[in-house]
Amino acid sequence: MRRTHRFFIKSNLRYHVDADAWFLFNIAASQTPVQRLFNERLSNNQGLDFREDKAPDGVTRFHALSAPAGPLEVMYEVEVERDELDCSVVPPATEATLVSLPSVAARFLYPSRYCESDKLVRFANMEFGQFAPGHERVMGICNWIFNHIVYLPGTTDSSTSAFDCATLRAGVCRDFAHLGIAFCRALGIPARYASGYAFLLQPPDYHAFFEVWLEGAWWYYDATRLAPQHGFIRVGSGHDAADTSVATMSATAQFVSMEISVEARSMDRVEYAEGPVTFFPQAPAK
Amino acid sequence: MRRTHRFFIKSNLRYHVDADAWFLFNIAASQTPVQRLFNERLSNNQGLDFREDKAPDGVTRFHALSAPAGPLEVMYEVEVERDELDCSVVPPATEATLVSLPSVAARFLYPSRYCESDKLVRFANMEFGQFAPGHERVMGICNWIFNHIVYLPGTTDSSTSAFDCATLRAGVCRDFAHLGIAFCRALGIPARYASGYAFLLQPPDYHAFFEVWLEGAWWYYDATRLAPQHGFIRVGSGHDAADTSVATMSATAQFVSMEISVEARSMDRVEYAEGPVTFFPQAPAK
Amino acid sequence: MRRTHRFFIKSNLRYHVDADAWFLFNIAASQTPVQRLFNERLSNNQGLDFREDKAPDGVTRFHALSAPAGPLEVMYEVEVERDELDCSVVPPATEATLVSLPSVAARFLYPSRYCESDKLVRFANMEFGQFAPGHERVMGICNWIFNHIVYLPGTTDSSTSAFDCATLRAGVCRDFAHLGIAFCRALGIPARYASGYAFLLQPPDYHAFFEVWLEGAWWYYDATRLAPQHGFIRVGSGHDAADTSVATMSATAQFVSMEISVEARSMDRVEYAEGPVTFFPQAPAK
Amino acid sequence: MRRTHRFFIKSNLRYHVDADAWFLFNIAASQTPVQRLFNERLSNNQGLDFREDKAPDGVTRFHALSAPAGPLEVMYEVEVERDELDCSVVPPATEATLVSLPSVAARFLYPSRYCESDKLVRFANMEFGQFAPGHERVMGICNWIFNHIVYLPGTTDSSTSAFDCATLRAGVCRDFAHLGIAFCRALGIPARYASGYAFLLQPPDYHAFFEVWLEGAWWYYDATRLAPQHGFIRVGSGHDAADTSVATMSATAQFVSMEISVEARSMDRVEYAEGPVTFFPQAPAK
Repeated sequence: MRRTHRFFIKSNLRYHVDADAWFLFNIAASQTPVQRLFNERLSNNQGLDFREDKAPDGVTRFHALSAPAGPLEVMYEVEVERDELDCSVVPPATEATLVSLPSVAARFLYPSRYCESDKLVRFANMEFGQFAPGHERVMGICNWIFNHIVYLPGTTDSSTSAFDCATLRAGVCRDFAHLGIAFCRALGIPARYASGYAFLLQPPDYHAFFEVWLEGAWWYYDATRLAPQHGFIRVGSGHDAADTSVATMSATAQFVSMEISVEARSMDRVEYAEGPVTFFPQAPAK
Repeated sequence: MRRTHRFFIKSNLRYHVDADAWFLFNIAASQTPVQRLFNERLSNNQGLDFREDKAPDGVTRFHALSAPAGPLEVMYEVEVERDELDCSVVPPATEATLVSLPSVAARFLYPSRYCESDKLVRFANMEFGQFAPGHERVMGICNWIFNHIVYLPGTTDSSTSAFDCATLRAGVCRDFAHLGIAFCRALGIPARYASGYAFLLQPPDYHAFFEVWLEGAWWYYDATRLAPQHGFIRVGSGHDAADTSVATMSATAQFVSMEISVEARSMDRVEYAEGPVTFFPQAPAK
Repeated sequence: MRRTHRFFIKSNLRYHVDADAWFLFNIAASQTPVQRLFNERLSNNQGLDFREDKAPDGVTRFHALSAPAGPLEVMYEVEVERDELDCSVVPPATEATLVSLPSVAARFLYPSRYCESDKLVRFANMEFGQFAPGHERVMGICNWIFNHIVYLPGTTDSSTSAFDCATLRAGVCRDFAHLGIAFCRALGIPARYASGYAFLLQPPDYHAFFEVWLEGAWWYYDATRLAPQHGFIRVGSGHDAADTSVATMSATAQFVSMEISVEARSMDRVEYAEGPVTFFPQAPAK
Repeated sequence: MRRTHRFFIKSNLRYHVDADAWFLFNIAASQTPVQRLFNERLSNNQGLDFREDKAPDGVTRFHALSAPAGPLEVMYEVEVERDELDCSVVPPATEATLVSLPSVAARFLYPSRYCESDKLVRFANMEFGQFAPGHERVMGICNWIFNHIVYLPGTTDSSTSAFDCATLRAGVCRDFAHLGIAFCRALGIPARYASGYAFLLQPPDYHAFFEVWLEGAWWYYDATRLAPQHGFIRVGSGHDAADTSVATMSATAQFVSMEISVEARSMDRVEYAEGPVTFFPQAPAK
């Protein structure tokens, strides 16, 4: 029987609303075979109703809200029971050919707002063309990103793309994910953006990583090495940060502050290895 | 009873394949309530099998092909019976709020590879903010594009985006559609890219236009004014040209030439009005 | 005899130097026939020597400084006697042809880092091609900028160019100048960036405007309408903000704060007209 | 006594002029201490007068021309006696500090249209920061460019910049030079663009390389390795291709074709080493 861990997540988002505003939140954990939710609670300080909607992947949930002027606070809490990674399972050393790709994966082959894979084809082939297919090639991509991009908050903004980041050589988790996705797609490997919570991430924040389609399943990779992937709680996935951001909202609302905490329940004896985190990909969330 | 027209479409695409290559074609007309297909035939000069796949919209079809070295020719033929436009139906003068948008429309609110709506928010509000909501605002967008962008083949390429085109002030149908989409999204109106065949388009070619979500349905708009919309035959829709292009293929294949013809059957007495084409949007294809 | 005004300028720039750093300041007023300097004093809190150098225009002065770790404060003071504008002189209604341009002007025809005039040719011809040549056309450019670009600190940064700003539709004085320059060059009219101090600018700050070559002389224009041009004190000119910025420095130094004041001496009875500032260009500084 | 070589250069440029057009040519070889001109002849098929102008560097010459509608052909011929490279002279292993830079060099520290050094600072420091200063660092830059950028005509166009090329990973001599310049400036080393003719370049064409300021003199470098630098004949220098292009002209003129030949006079016994060309920089042209 597989061991599981139980995480307790709290997220608090505060906004100032100048005039009637709408919000679309992407903060609720996904319910998947390896990640089960308990005691989930989404609320706000004004008693407003959320409308829940699911993305085409059937798992990612959005919560829409319409709020009047005034301070808005959105509180989310959930307990997540999550299967431990089976590190003996290594992702495949093969890549699907386009001809055999199902459309659910094929639609993540195309360039998107922040992942202009069409402009990175030569770069990706030069740097990663000589790797063995599949897992090794994607690890080569992750290592290149880790070694060439400085993790440096404040250097990029909401308009920075993978193409920019490849040369600016600095960014945050969002940029690391965009680069990984763009390189994969440039090599004909479907890849998508994933957002989530991460245990032991310092400072606590929303996290972004990416998922790669290898032989019939999505495997996830994180080039930042900022938190152990045993503690990733998946929220949503999409083409890139454009459709997977924490919140999309009217211009009449301003972000004020946020607090996030991800705690592990003590009875689960979560024993994360010391030293450098290993980054084997995990079994797919879906 | 609604009048219909019958169109006979032929498309011939020729490639040179240097070494084993894969292709993903997006050239087959959609089967929709207003557009019915007869005698469809997709073939190639090498007797290779196509694999058909449908996009998440359930209507757009892709055809994958794996081809060996040598010349490749892909032939497509179909007869399409298409309902005449009911020009007495005018698209709504309202726009859905994000809170009420179904996810099928909401996912076309976000910026994409060629439609960086996040960078056009101020521009769109300045130029189109004063229009009445819905149809009038979208017509305002179409008119601005028609009046400010020169239709000029050769001025843009496969990496040109709406942001570029807004300042370069020239482009082709693809660019006109990208701009329309980007402006709509920047104003909080879902919009998507649509590809198709167009009767009377000169020279005959694939055409691109865009679809806008107004009060529960997609309406289509074309800022190019190059062909009467009574003769549009819809192939596919997507975020932008990135996932709706005619063909995506390996680097080992080169496009050589193509021929397209769209003819109307004489017994249908298609009587297109003379003079400037009117651009009332059409009832949604789906 | 022409009336003159006397301005008293003070500038205080503070930096924190982490390790040995170099600086290149462009803050000293130009000595020109219409702008005469008195009691100039450039100093710093560490008693370091400045090395003065002149730009190829023979007027713009740079001051280089090498500073050790620690706080650095650079103080500049000067009295400037400046001829009053002769508003009866209107800039020419003609534009020089390239063939007759001296190289001193011709070198400001080319695109530069922040003024990609090569990408704005169609835009400029569409919007300003119908104006009368010379002064009217340049005024048309200034008016377009004023009416389409929102003056909004914080919307652009040091990498924003004229091409970006044309679509982002917001910026500061630097961006307004870049756009003016780019449009002029796109139309074959030499234009350069000018930096300076400006009386009555609120809040007090360095200011940027642009200079246009019309029939043998440089005339200056300011599309921001933020301060009366009767009170402009010219510091330097160059291709764009890249070579005309207030300070260029090592990565080991950080800007901390600054204070600027521009005062008019009371005995000069400076009587600026009330109401909307008129923006007639001034006789050339050189 | 230094050995010299004598080169015979011919350039033929053909344009079609639709309506009165102006041209600014930058095709005449520079007269410098190491490069002496004989029997120079600049003419055109219409007997039109050229107006010669010199750039601020006192060496680069421009030739302006005004031409009526019709075919235009511009012929240039010159014999150039050029000192042989003294390969025992190696460029300095030191870099000037900004504080000691004369303005003639300092103005080539700033980013320009095609060399956005401001956006390549982190990249340049990561890749070249560990090299010894001066010649070794610049050679490190040249080697990186040669090893990472594919020389591939047709992949870039007149709007491609160093920032683009760093990620697109392909380009022509112009792009190689832009990258070299941008990396140098990003590291605080003045660098400028140089155009010229090159003996043994295949196919014969105008060539571009770059010049770097090291300890009081300009040294030239070429990352393309396409032709032996013993056979470079310098035409002009500038910030980048924006102000150093072969010809700037009205929109009413179109380039048709060109022919270039660079021949060595037999009596000079030009004995270029076999094998891979060595790329020691040459003594400065000025």
